[in-house]
Amino acid sequence: MYTALLKHIQHYIPLNEAEEKEITRNFKVLQLKKKTVILEAGQTCKGNYFVAKGCLRMYFFDDKGVEQTTQFAIENWWISDYTSLALKKTSEFYLQTVEDSTIIVLETAVEDALLEQVPKLERYFRLMFQRAYGTSQHLAKYNHTLSREAHYRHFNKSFPDFVQRIPQYMLASFLGFTPEFLSKIRAKKDQPIS
Amino acid sequence: MYTALLKHIQHYIPLNEAEEKEITRNFKVLQLKKKTVILEAGQTCKGNYFVAKGCLRMYFFDDKGVEQTTQFAIENWWISDYTSLALKKTSEFYLQTVEDSTIIVLETAVEDALLEQVPKLERYFRLMFQRAYGTSQHLAKYNHTLSREAHYRHFNKSFPDFVQRIPQYMLASFLGFTPEFLSKIRAKKDQPIS
Repeated sequence: MYTALLKHIQHYIPLNEAEEKEITRNFKVLQLKKKTVILEAGQTCKGNYFVAKGCLRMYFFDDKGVEQTTQFAIENWWISDYTSLALKKTSEFYLQTVEDSTIIVLETAVEDALLEQVPKLERYFRLMFQRAYGTSQHLAKYNHTLSREAHYRHFNKSFPDFVQRIPQYMLASFLGFTPEFLSKIRAKKDQPIS
Repeated sequence: MYTALLKHIQHYIPLNEAEEKEITRNFKVLQLKKKTVILEAGQTCKGNYFVAKGCLRMYFFDDKGVEQTTQFAIENWWISDYTSLALKKTSEFYLQTVEDSTIIVLETAVEDALLEQVPKLERYFRLMFQRAYGTSQHLAKYNHTLSREAHYRHFNKSFPDFVQRIPQYMLASFLGFTPEFLSKIRAKKDQPIS
């Protein structure tokens, strides 16, 4: 159950046996069916979620009651509402499984104790947040330069397997257009990026 | 010179005298005139920059050769191209002072050694990246929901002093519209957010 997580951590920091035990003792495994909601807006987020298998997404409802997806996490990515976690304030987001998923969660209630027991995990999480934040800096650049259609093509080229896995309406929302517009773009697939 | 940085770190983690010394020995202070470029696209980013006084911004040139500002950092914020830092690859961004600034830099060349000497800094930086990443998650939400005009009004309300400090054309670029459109919005200041 913990193999994917331990392997991922060990890619960044070495772990001895005692540390591995401490980690598996503190992280919880959740086997979740597709479309399970694990965080709702208005709740305080209570954990940091690692996707061992499957996919999670983050979304909110806009003023018109329409779901807007802001983020996806597939295998080997962490996802949570990090402001809600850090400030212990209620979240504005929902977290939901997109597929049947195996999620490993580090609950806020045990996080501090674990980080004291295995302080080198601070380094691991520092590297994870640095990576995620770096990605968001590049996303800001794409949002400035690429047309929505070019954004989709870039996304499609960078993550072809992922694009096949998720429902079209979620991808459309993430990219900021309607499912109809996405269908139109998909229909003229072979045109070059402009 | 280091007071602002040490105070900021101590807000998150306690430091003893030896650790304070180790930090001031490893961080460098830069006194920079307004409009000094400290990173250029095509270079590999070599440091993580803390704004003790003044303001830095991150930008790039789009296909038409127009500057696009993606980020600002004022007092007590860190800024850098974190992908370039982490992967030691060339940057797509520029970093430049917006005002005369005092910047404290942690150079990549000494970072690993310092983090070994003062491992609790891993926690400090983990918290910094978590905070920055959390902010970028909320920014993604605003980009999905708010019209550009509402985005400006929200930004103006959240950071009124900051909005006064930076040139209008940079703010316009950051918010994704032309300086002319920003002037227009500013002219009708008293209307409610829609």
